[in-house]
This record gives sequence, C-alpha cells and structure tokens, in this order.
Amino acid sequence: MEQLRKAIETQAIGIGSDIVKVDMFLNHRIDTGLLFAMGRAWAEEFREEKPDLVLTVEASGIAMAAAAAHELGDIPVVFAKKNPAVTNTGEMVEAPVYSFTHKKQNMICVDRKYLPEGSRVLIIDDFLADGEAVRGMMSLCDQRMAKVVGVGIAVEKGFQPGGKQLREMGIHLKSLAIVDGIEDGKIRLREEN
Amino acid sequence: MEQLRKAIETQAIGIGSDIVKVDMFLNHRIDTGLLFAMGRAWAEEFREEKPDLVLTVEASGIAMAAAAAHELGDIPVVFAKKNPAVTNTGEMVEAPVYSFTHKKQNMICVDRKYLPEGSRVLIIDDFLADGEAVRGMMSLCDQRMAKVVGVGIAVEKGFQPGGKQLREMGIHLKSLAIVDGIEDGKIRLREEN
Repeated sequence: MEQLRKAIETQAIGIGSDIVKVDMFLNHRIDTGLLFAMGRAWAEEFREEKPDLVLTVEASGIAMAAAAAHELGDIPVVFAKKNPAVTNTGEMVEAPVYSFTHKKQNMICVDRKYLPEGSRVLIIDDFLADGEAVRGMMSLCDQRMAKVVGVGIAVEKGFQPGGKQLREMGIHLKSLAIVDGIEDGKIRLREEN
Repeated sequence: MEQLRKAIETQAIGIGSDIVKVDMFLNHRIDTGLLFAMGRAWAEEFREEKPDLVLTVEASGIAMAAAAAHELGDIPVVFAKKNPAVTNTGEMVEAPVYSFTHKKQNMICVDRKYLPEGSRVLIIDDFLADGEAVRGMMSLCDQRMAKVVGVGIAVEKGFQPGGKQLREMGIHLKSLAIVDGIEDGKIRLREEN
C-alpha cells in the first residue's frame, strides 16, 4: 500500500537487524489519515470474506482494527486482553503469546461471549514477524469454533517466518507493507506486485 | 448522549457500588457504530477549541481517541504508554497514574516529540472517576508546555470527585454519560440537560 510504504520510507526507523520502529505514525503517535486509508485497504481486500467481527490484541492493534471495522460497515471489534482486569468476571478463552518486543510471554484472553461460535473473524494486527500474536488469536478462534476468514497486517517482516507459514496454511493474508531487511538503519521494502 | 445512555441502560453491568462494566460495547468488544457516533459527539463539542491532536492512554482509550480524531478531520492521535517497550529510545515525559481497576500505580509516558510545545490537546478517555488518568495526561501536557483545550469522557462516575474537580478548574469537560450511582446492580444515569 503506497501510503504506508511512503510513511515507512520517510519516517520509520530501522534498529539493529530486525526492529522497525513506527512510533511516529502507528504505534505511539497515530497518523489518523493514514490509519483510515489502511482501514479502507483492508476493507477492500476482505469485504468478500464477509467477516462478522474484527479481532486484535491490545494495545497498538486497536486503532487499526477500529479503522478496518468502520470501513467494513461498522462491524464490531473485539480486542484480546493481555492483563485481565479484576473486573473480568466472564469466562475467558486463553492462549499464550511470546512478545519479542517486551521479551516475555503474555497470556491473551477473550471473553467467550464476544467471540461467538461460528462467527467469521478478520484478524488485524500491526506487525507480523514470527506470527506469535496471530497464532494466539487463531487459537482463541479455534477454541470458540469461530472461523478466521482473513488476516490483515500493517507491516510484515518478510525475513521472519510468520507470513510464509500463514500463506502455506492457506490463510488469506494481506500485509500492507513487507520489510525484507534492515541494514545499517536502512529499511528495505519488498516491491508491490 | 442518547445512544451511549441506551447502551449503558441495556448492556452495562453494575458491580458493587462503583464498577460500571462496559465490556460488551466499549472495553473489550467495541460497538463500532456507537464508537463513531461518540467520536462525532466529541468532535461537535470540541471543534471550536481547534485541537491539534488527541491524547489518550492505552489501551481502552485508543479506539475512542481514533474515532474522535477521525471526526475532527483526521488530526493525529497520541497514546501515552503504560509499559515502555524496549524499542523506546526517545526521550520521554512521565507521570504517575494509580489504576483502581488494576489496583496498582503505573507510570504513563509520552515521547516528547509527539507532544510538541504549544500544541492544543484534546484529552479523550473511557472513564472519569477520581480523575487520576486525566490528571496524569494533563501533567504530561504541562511538562511539554502544551495546552489542554478539552477533556472528552465516555462515562463519568458522577459520585466520584474527578469531574467536579476538573469543572472547578475551568476545564472544558464533556462526559457523554454520567453515572450517579449503582445500587443492587442497577446503574442510575444522570438526566441530560
């Protein structure tokens, strides 16, 4: 997606060999115009899959999920939680997710009643690297007998295995930008086909 | 705001004397149609304050902030973080916030460069009770010499002191619904004026 690629080229920061910092326009400050353009791009890609809801994980996926859900005609968003609040009294389904950013394993969880059996789920997330978060969300859907009809990602790290594995599984995956490598702080983007 | 009041009346759960659980439509599952109607209500209230950006705290404020920012013409959103990631290399301003939900104190922080000196800031958050989160965000703005031009809240707990204190300070505060009490699980909403 041209607008996201341009934002990455002009504003993202490459750190080491595998960190793409998009704090300026997605993950701390949000470029709202870009956000809703991304929402429209995902909506166009996944409209025919007829999702009933968008599933993401707090925190940085929430704005993207809301934009996609809005552009899909205001379907509901459900965000999996990392730290169950003391006010959570409902019954939860859970899955483990290892966060490479925070270097720890989180349990993510969703209240059963917000992920109804048989629902068609579009998963949205900011990054796809090893695929841990997406697999965690797929596990939540499996546990609820909900069907994952698509996975929409902002930035895929093409040099890590998550995207390849999902494609090999036959998942309908749309990454709006794919980073093929980071060298000397320079982020190399894959050409769009 | 009628649509939010109706959602609270029909779907929210009152627990004990002070917990209003809005997981079904705001804080875990999001009713996206309601979310953007709330965004329009805040935009209408605060448009004349000419905010440059919307500030909130992760996680549950993010969707509301994005909706308000979209309806204000796609101005940027900045969300303060609770758990600085290892990828945060920028210089941060910080403020303490006690969370009654999680029963612990968090530091919230924002990268200085995303809260520019002199900017006009609209604070958006889901709940206003003791006012801890809003005061934390106001402190971040003060530290950056940014001006808080308004505070938009989804659900104010009118029986706790946060809203009263902000109004006495002369802050332009708009709560879309005000809960005056919870008795035997029943949530009592203040009449709109």
